[in-house]
Amino acid sequence: MNYNPVELILKKREGHELTPSEIDFFIQNFVKGEIPDYQMSAMLMCIFFRGASSEEISALTGSYIKSGKSIEFPADLPVADKHSTGGVGDKLSLMLAPISAALGLYVPMISGRGLGHTGGTLDKLESIPGFRTEYEIDEFKELVLKYGYALVGQSDELVPADKMIYALRDVTASVESPALITASIMSKKIAEGAKYLVIDLKIGSGAFMPDIHKARELAAHLKATGESFGQKVKIVFTNMNSPLGHAVGNALETIEAIEFLKGNTLPDNYEITLMLVSQMLILSGLAESLEEAKEMFDRVIADGSALKEFEKIIRIQGGNPEVIRDYSLFPTAKYESPVIAEKSGYIHEIDSRKIGYSLVRIKAGRMKTSDSLDYSSGAILPKKIGDEITAGESLGKVLSNDQALGDEVARMIAESYLILPEKKEKESLILEIL
Amino acid sequence: MNYNPVELILKKREGHELTPSEIDFFIQNFVKGEIPDYQMSAMLMCIFFRGASSEEISALTGSYIKSGKSIEFPADLPVADKHSTGGVGDKLSLMLAPISAALGLYVPMISGRGLGHTGGTLDKLESIPGFRTEYEIDEFKELVLKYGYALVGQSDELVPADKMIYALRDVTASVESPALITASIMSKKIAEGAKYLVIDLKIGSGAFMPDIHKARELAAHLKATGESFGQKVKIVFTNMNSPLGHAVGNALETIEAIEFLKGNTLPDNYEITLMLVSQMLILSGLAESLEEAKEMFDRVIADGSALKEFEKIIRIQGGNPEVIRDYSLFPTAKYESPVIAEKSGYIHEIDSRKIGYSLVRIKAGRMKTSDSLDYSSGAILPKKIGDEITAGESLGKVLSNDQALGDEVARMIAESYLILPEKKEKESLILEIL
Repeated sequence: MNYNPVELILKKREGHELTPSEIDFFIQNFVKGEIPDYQMSAMLMCIFFRGASSEEISALTGSYIKSGKSIEFPADLPVADKHSTGGVGDKLSLMLAPISAALGLYVPMISGRGLGHTGGTLDKLESIPGFRTEYEIDEFKELVLKYGYALVGQSDELVPADKMIYALRDVTASVESPALITASIMSKKIAEGAKYLVIDLKIGSGAFMPDIHKARELAAHLKATGESFGQKVKIVFTNMNSPLGHAVGNALETIEAIEFLKGNTLPDNYEITLMLVSQMLILSGLAESLEEAKEMFDRVIADGSALKEFEKIIRIQGGNPEVIRDYSLFPTAKYESPVIAEKSGYIHEIDSRKIGYSLVRIKAGRMKTSDSLDYSSGAILPKKIGDEITAGESLGKVLSNDQALGDEVARMIAESYLILPEKKEKESLILEIL
Repeated sequence: MNYNPVELILKKREGHELTPSEIDFFIQNFVKGEIPDYQMSAMLMCIFFRGASSEEISALTGSYIKSGKSIEFPADLPVADKHSTGGVGDKLSLMLAPISAALGLYVPMISGRGLGHTGGTLDKLESIPGFRTEYEIDEFKELVLKYGYALVGQSDELVPADKMIYALRDVTASVESPALITASIMSKKIAEGAKYLVIDLKIGSGAFMPDIHKARELAAHLKATGESFGQKVKIVFTNMNSPLGHAVGNALETIEAIEFLKGNTLPDNYEITLMLVSQMLILSGLAESLEEAKEMFDRVIADGSALKEFEKIIRIQGGNPEVIRDYSLFPTAKYESPVIAEKSGYIHEIDSRKIGYSLVRIKAGRMKTSDSLDYSSGAILPKKIGDEITAGESLGKVLSNDQALGDEVARMIAESYLILPEKKEKESLILEIL
């Protein structure tokens, strides 16, 4: 069918529902360059203001997928994946993928890079010397079939419409639309061939979603869209008010993930990773209950098989597997700057977003996709909301290659902790499951 | 000041007010090509959805003006103009400008072309063989100072921001925004140097505004914006349910305007033109009351001085002034197709918009700015809402250069009249004055 793009923008602007054929016309012609950027940005803004129905979001997701290649795995294979909406110190994929593979799941994990205050799995992996993340779709599929999982970046062949539209949303202020976020996330997770999908929907000061109400709206869209493509989807709402684990920064987080696989698990990393893997196991039928899943999870850590999976994939993807035993093979920062508590009392709030942004200054993160990173820099921040602290005591440390800048970042991080005299309860990590 | 364009779009998207400096940054950088089309179209859509305050609209109008040259006339000169929001059969400028000039007003009239169902003064003027409408700003100002008025098109030097933004709004479905319409209209009318401005805000089936409520919102913006630049503004709300006068089509309407100046005035053309000129005379202090203005208006028609003004400007602007006496000098259509009433009764409604669009088929109008026109084609439609008619009787005629197409258009026009057995009151022409 042929449509007039202006009439389609007008239709959406006036709050009418677009048909799947109209949506597909708009998306495919945009990808072909026949609908210009300025018409797409007007359409995206109309979707931002008017929202979209479940049918429209499914159609949009389908059109995104249709714009490129997709992967199909054999019907009997338990292919599962996890998506996180992004946080500070979120290295869970690095533990979750090898653990899942050790338990018999196939995990075609396509990850992204960090931007703004949040980190990205791809950057953490690239802190491992030699680790390669760029693969063609067919090669990637072969890796997953042969080795049970692979950890790669998004290829240009997969969902090019999303890549193009995301770039445009970024420069035209239409990122925060549940409809557009849903199509962006789900198109990639469907095109990569995942049959069972668990979404870690993070809520709090270090997440994109500040409160659970907005998160519930997004969650409903995500689940409905996945299901409309025959996927089984679980949404786990998790607390992102304190940075996860202790480490924030690329090499530091990768080391923390290796320690986890060696059995040195930090409580928050453990609780959330366990829940995400358990949901993947239950969705795919490999476990029947949370109890059974926990036993399986604990077993592959205790017997070293999950660590072996990680060592294997590092070798297969060109990295130096010796990093598992020798952390000095990671890029290492020269200087330490202590983060000192300014007051005595209990930690009531942590501005995790501010911590993420502060760390961008020492290149542990980036503001623009073209910014370079320093894999060695970051922070170790063991204190959580509810912890007691005394003025002058250490909240942690910043690791950097510039002492003065590191000290400044440490001061900014110290300011991110709200310390009050009254007691404060520890917060729940798992908030809700849908 | 330097701003981040994405943050400005975001600010407007979230419903916050932009400062004059932020608005000016966005407009001037767009005109310079430093803000791309896709960011402007996103911003325009945000303005569409969020609206704009009086201060924002004034700032936007000021930035439009600043993007090009403007005209300033000596302080003591009564410089007045009229703007119409567009209708079907609206040839009032062709009478209003020479009448005003004959009464001592200076009229720097910059007109537009027809688009969609509405006609444009520039097209009507160009049906006069030789008539030139393209002038540089300085030349145009000289004409007005020397001859009391001039009838030209918008030069690229004047308000280029409006020209660029209007073109973008047209292809991104953000035309119907009171804020953007106001800045577009008022920037041109302020930059051309008009001190007294009367706006003919048309409402009804042949207008852009279907009802008076939306029109009142636009009117308030137009008046407040003009006044913020020291202009005196009157808004006359007029009825656009029946096409104005009898003629629709470029040469046909120009001939009807000449007949008017010869004293053969049709009632609706007369009532509305009289009111618009009267308001211009009162705003500028040349008349004290509607009664005095009517006497002045009638006098310059009766004594032939208004007609002489028109003949003069045709000669000055390169046209053949003999058209005043010899209508065969206009392009003439070959064929007539009668428009026949299908039912007996009273005319309750006329779909003037449909009439306008039908006439595009015989090139009396155009759908795209690049479409060519047939100046000779059009229709003569003397019947108005409230008139009685008998089935088979003539509602008027279509004039074209393609008999088959003309017949088809005549049938479409016949269908535009809703004829019902019960009596229908004549409608008021002047609805409200602000």
